[in-house]
Amino acid sequence: MSSALTIGIVGATGAVGTEIVGLLDKGQWANAKLRVFGSERSIGKPISRLKENVLIESLHDNSFAGFDIVFFAANSEISKEYASKFAREGSFVIDNSSAFRMDPEVPLVVPEINFDAVSSSTKIIANPNCSTIIMLMAVAPLRKFGHIRRLIVSTYQSASGAGRDAMIELEESTRAHLDGRDFVPQVLPHPYAFNVFSHNTEIDESGYNGEEVKMIQETRKILGDPTIQVNPTCIRVPVLRSHSESITIEFDQDAPAVNEVRDALAEFPGVRVVDDRDANHFPMPVETNGQGDVLVGRIRKDVSHPNSISLFACGDQLLKGAALNAVQIADKLVKLS
Amino acid sequence: MSSALTIGIVGATGAVGTEIVGLLDKGQWANAKLRVFGSERSIGKPISRLKENVLIESLHDNSFAGFDIVFFAANSEISKEYASKFAREGSFVIDNSSAFRMDPEVPLVVPEINFDAVSSSTKIIANPNCSTIIMLMAVAPLRKFGHIRRLIVSTYQSASGAGRDAMIELEESTRAHLDGRDFVPQVLPHPYAFNVFSHNTEIDESGYNGEEVKMIQETRKILGDPTIQVNPTCIRVPVLRSHSESITIEFDQDAPAVNEVRDALAEFPGVRVVDDRDANHFPMPVETNGQGDVLVGRIRKDVSHPNSISLFACGDQLLKGAALNAVQIADKLVKLS
Repeated sequence: MSSALTIGIVGATGAVGTEIVGLLDKGQWANAKLRVFGSERSIGKPISRLKENVLIESLHDNSFAGFDIVFFAANSEISKEYASKFAREGSFVIDNSSAFRMDPEVPLVVPEINFDAVSSSTKIIANPNCSTIIMLMAVAPLRKFGHIRRLIVSTYQSASGAGRDAMIELEESTRAHLDGRDFVPQVLPHPYAFNVFSHNTEIDESGYNGEEVKMIQETRKILGDPTIQVNPTCIRVPVLRSHSESITIEFDQDAPAVNEVRDALAEFPGVRVVDDRDANHFPMPVETNGQGDVLVGRIRKDVSHPNSISLFACGDQLLKGAALNAVQIADKLVKLS
Repeated sequence: MSSALTIGIVGATGAVGTEIVGLLDKGQWANAKLRVFGSERSIGKPISRLKENVLIESLHDNSFAGFDIVFFAANSEISKEYASKFAREGSFVIDNSSAFRMDPEVPLVVPEINFDAVSSSTKIIANPNCSTIIMLMAVAPLRKFGHIRRLIVSTYQSASGAGRDAMIELEESTRAHLDGRDFVPQVLPHPYAFNVFSHNTEIDESGYNGEEVKMIQETRKILGDPTIQVNPTCIRVPVLRSHSESITIEFDQDAPAVNEVRDALAEFPGVRVVDDRDANHFPMPVETNGQGDVLVGRIRKDVSHPNSISLFACGDQLLKGAALNAVQIADKLVKLS
């Protein structure tokens, strides 16, 4: 790629798009030419960068040429309609929606785990589901100890996964609760203040919701292991922007020792071990919000099964769960070219 | 027992004690004579009942005679020092602390599950840990389908389990966060506003914390099954007074069908099935706060294992998790006598 990159962002004003813009103000990206695309109501409004304001454009038929990389951070319908148009004109597309994740032609990439899924013919790359990324950052480093046959995971998911309006609804409904005022949810189907509820995606005939099905299917694709069994329970908790996950990991054979697990995680890029039993200090959203590493702790042998370990992971849903993972894919694409 | 019962409450002003007082305003208990005991700083202050105010007394050497039932809702040290003194004078003692739970001479009782552990010589009965009660209300009804060999549970625990001061800290720290003010936690070791953290009990050499060890040991005692394996991960979430739990239940043989599980739960006293997949309506703290049933939903075959099912349970920590379970024990003791 040329050193003067032209980067596009579709959906630049949403929760994830805003984070991508912020990340593109740093390092090699600060000098890139940025073009941003938004919905009809935002066209012509400025997006702030360090060096300039960039005006939001509409997506029209002659928008698609001249890009090196385009990030999609809108919904699946927008991705399905426009991603291939940019790709056909020669751009890489990194899509944060679920539109292409299970497309066998499209690599689904967590850069630290499976960037080798990208081939010379790749133009569109899918960014995985946020809960899947955060889980696999804690799981993938442990494959060195043998085949992992089963994951049992319960999530503690933040408002940000449902977008900026859900984050605002969490804050506003919480303030109303504290003030003793009624609040009728508009964005999410259930009250969010001081409450938890099952993830608000459709439940299929097996009893799993859409978020859980993503975790099952995407795990198999990213790890390249169609046999791995995954049992997720996805729950929203009143947290603004980090997901936490309680994960039990079963191997085909005896589980590795805790110290081995801790070392394997500590040396994996993008993972930080926070596992201080004496201080009772383990991963927490307040310590992942706004930073890129996935924190992992509560590492222990599962007392209920000799092949199994349990741990607790936490990561910023908007960063490693979405925008940062996408920009890290772009980093690697630039080095490839 | 005589119809004019004399009931004592030790620790009547705490979060659990207050709920016991409220429950004793109802039904057969409304006519009981109530005596309440508190810490030095509360002596002489009134506790409100429907019909009267009751003044808080100190625990001194001639306090112990003349009771039918005494509830302990203070800490373990108080229970260890005073419970046997009331029992020796002929009273039943129902202890909400952990002091006697694992004492082989003391039954540990969830009335719907194992009231048969109470014998004619029983004077002290232990009220189980709140997370254990709520889990077992969802698990015990399923033993009819065969031996349960393993439970994997992740909790979403409320502030109330750490007492009234923790509930106040959750509200105050949340208000500070919304107002952009700093807040230094005084009651809990970590920030609570829009955060989750691993349960703040000591971690043992196996890597499990005190709350988790209670869930393991108390489950075996209540179910009378020393072989059942339990792998808990106990996490606090910013919820005021209900615990939720994501539970995976493994049988020795193939798991029962979802409809059978749903029916078994629905007919169990104290359990209410809330499992509307079409409406995405499942158990939530906002629907258990202040009521006695444990709600169970998200009932499904675990796609990761043929012997296993998963579900999500939610119950009021102060009621079925503590005060209500204790009063239900008392109800049954009265009927025994």
